[in-house]
Amino acid sequence: MSKIVSKSVKKTAKSAQECINMVIAQSGGPSMVINDSLCGALMAGRSARKAGKIGKILGAKHGVEGILKGDYIDLTELKDKAIKRLLATPSSALGSCRHKPDAKDCRKIFEEFRRLKVGFFFYIGGNDSADAARIVAEEAEKENYPLVVYHIPKTIDNDLRSCDHTPGYASAANFVIRALIGDDLDNRALGGVKIDVIMGRDAGFLTASSALARVRPDCGPHLIYLPEVPFSEEKFVKDVKAVLKKYNRCVVAVSEGIRGKDGVPIGAKLGTGEKDSHGNVQMSGSGALGDHLARVLKEKAAVKRVRADTFGYLQRSFPSLQTSQDMAEAAGVGFFAVNYALAAAAGVKGSIKKGTVGILRKKGKTYKVDYKALPIQDAAKETRAFPKEFIAKGGNDVTKAFVDYLKPLIDDLPEIEILL
Amino acid sequence: MSKIVSKSVKKTAKSAQECINMVIAQSGGPSMVINDSLCGALMAGRSARKAGKIGKILGAKHGVEGILKGDYIDLTELKDKAIKRLLATPSSALGSCRHKPDAKDCRKIFEEFRRLKVGFFFYIGGNDSADAARIVAEEAEKENYPLVVYHIPKTIDNDLRSCDHTPGYASAANFVIRALIGDDLDNRALGGVKIDVIMGRDAGFLTASSALARVRPDCGPHLIYLPEVPFSEEKFVKDVKAVLKKYNRCVVAVSEGIRGKDGVPIGAKLGTGEKDSHGNVQMSGSGALGDHLARVLKEKAAVKRVRADTFGYLQRSFPSLQTSQDMAEAAGVGFFAVNYALAAAAGVKGSIKKGTVGILRKKGKTYKVDYKALPIQDAAKETRAFPKEFIAKGGNDVTKAFVDYLKPLIDDLPEIEILL
Repeated sequence: MSKIVSKSVKKTAKSAQECINMVIAQSGGPSMVINDSLCGALMAGRSARKAGKIGKILGAKHGVEGILKGDYIDLTELKDKAIKRLLATPSSALGSCRHKPDAKDCRKIFEEFRRLKVGFFFYIGGNDSADAARIVAEEAEKENYPLVVYHIPKTIDNDLRSCDHTPGYASAANFVIRALIGDDLDNRALGGVKIDVIMGRDAGFLTASSALARVRPDCGPHLIYLPEVPFSEEKFVKDVKAVLKKYNRCVVAVSEGIRGKDGVPIGAKLGTGEKDSHGNVQMSGSGALGDHLARVLKEKAAVKRVRADTFGYLQRSFPSLQTSQDMAEAAGVGFFAVNYALAAAAGVKGSIKKGTVGILRKKGKTYKVDYKALPIQDAAKETRAFPKEFIAKGGNDVTKAFVDYLKPLIDDLPEIEILL
Repeated sequence: MSKIVSKSVKKTAKSAQECINMVIAQSGGPSMVINDSLCGALMAGRSARKAGKIGKILGAKHGVEGILKGDYIDLTELKDKAIKRLLATPSSALGSCRHKPDAKDCRKIFEEFRRLKVGFFFYIGGNDSADAARIVAEEAEKENYPLVVYHIPKTIDNDLRSCDHTPGYASAANFVIRALIGDDLDNRALGGVKIDVIMGRDAGFLTASSALARVRPDCGPHLIYLPEVPFSEEKFVKDVKAVLKKYNRCVVAVSEGIRGKDGVPIGAKLGTGEKDSHGNVQMSGSGALGDHLARVLKEKAAVKRVRADTFGYLQRSFPSLQTSQDMAEAAGVGFFAVNYALAAAAGVKGSIKKGTVGILRKKGKTYKVDYKALPIQDAAKETRAFPKEFIAKGGNDVTKAFVDYLKPLIDDLPEIEILL
């Protein structure tokens, strides 16, 4: 960073007392409950406003890109009716982006924040968004700009190291499980092999959730392939043949992120090669992987009827499938992020100025969680892989331990009747 | 048909009085409410059984294929609890097939029916299933086998000439509308062009239903392409560019059955060429069409972010998205089919022995329907195309007349809040 600009920022930086407005934004792939986190933060922000601890509440449009452009929505007086509707609205209501800010961006951000007297910045998103927030927080420190930064966790991938499970995951899993219940009935009716490609660039959690669709032991998915287990086409063909021998049909759940021994995602090799600014290759929004696997089975296993569906963006944006737990916890992390930030601004002992909200599951028979302020680094950049104890021995299924982990997060599933 | 076999069937044919058992089966692509029709027929069959007019109620597994194999489930004593669950179970609970019976098959079917004293045959399905039932009915007449045959309408394609709308359509539309509401919010958050490929081999009804996702005038789908309007890639590129200019983003709903001036579906050219015994080319279960259209836009319109999702089998099999109207009407056509068949067996004047159940919408402000026994030919083989008055002038949208037609069939949609 050049000294001149650095100086200019310092010169204009306000004191912590003056900077009482908050900016909140959303980043990365949307989820069904990311707006619940926005609402949770909004509620806490309004309470704090009444107590004179927070001034205006500004929503930046399309993440940090909105801040860089000075493009905001004033949420301070958003009506209760709108908040109620927002709680049930999937996808990022403020808009999203996949922009990784650099030092130059940060200087511009602080100029904006200075102008708007912003002392609190909240960024709702996954690991890349946490990393973006970490960069902003660290640059602010370097610049001596008085800013409390909190990352609010969200990702359908469930791959943050800081959370037992992430808001957004359970609702996406709810979609996947229901889709698989229906799809298994469809396959039961017409036979053949059905391949379902499910989101999860690096972590198999969402694909694994399909296991809860097994209402009866003969229900699909009969095979589950995760990014964490090297994928072999030969093994895949062999696995499918074995299921066909047993059930005369086969339903397969495959993660979009499956990769061969070389570690390169197969979908990325078939795709467009498009990358975002965090270096992630595009894998969703194309049917290429499913179609490729269908061709493999037709050619190498001589299966006549093979169909492939790629669940795509539906699994993260479908309205009315949010689970009650997920909505509550998404609102919870938003609410606590603001309160942790207020504690940090007030200099409360043990408080964290560059934080993320962790979700910890309490031990015991009944499902309960605790929220905790954690250093932002705990959520940023590196992701959590699907634990080894959740992967079944053969590498093509999940364990009971995983089902026990996921079950409390999912609402009651529709009761169905199987006649065949 | 050879005279020898013809004789043998005649020799063993029972009188109408002896043949009081009924066989019911499901055929073609499943829907979310095809089991409601099974339940409706089951209820009527049980009432008739109490009155001594029907004996056993047998469900043939996998349509006529089950009859040919002698593979049945006895549904006579199916428990009320199971029926209740069945009402909420998508996909064909008895299994399905796409087999077109020939005269030889029919002789085998009548031998089976004779053995089982079957006098009533009900076939739940679309136009191909109606045609299969018509063949069975006409062959029975030729063979002098005493059989009342009723086709029970079902198809998510909504393309039967005998129905104002078909059971299964509204629930699939409910999925499509909700998917588009969520997908439009997703596209609003991240921008670019999103292409959604929706089922409908020959008729655009299901793709057209996406129009109801427009909660606000700027909501997607911004463009709707139907099989009934010849598709031009040049026009498509031009249309998308115009929407991008207006909204800086674009959501497109495309029927899997879109075809060029030559009348050949574009998806069929890209696919495997697989055909069923009714001559239908496979188009679902592949992402090829969506990926092709995404490539076209990247190359010819220089759009950077283009994503394509193919809704696939989810739109016909997703549990818990059945609409209340659709469930009631699906049960209705099953119930009335049995009652119309009983009237025909009793020789009631004006009754039809080879029938289908028509759904007629009553005129007036409030939505109401009538059921009517119609000749089976009215549903068989030829389909109904999307009416011209439902297609907007430019050929890339639907009219208000279509929205008015569909709206009464759909339950309340989730209320959402749009901030951007």
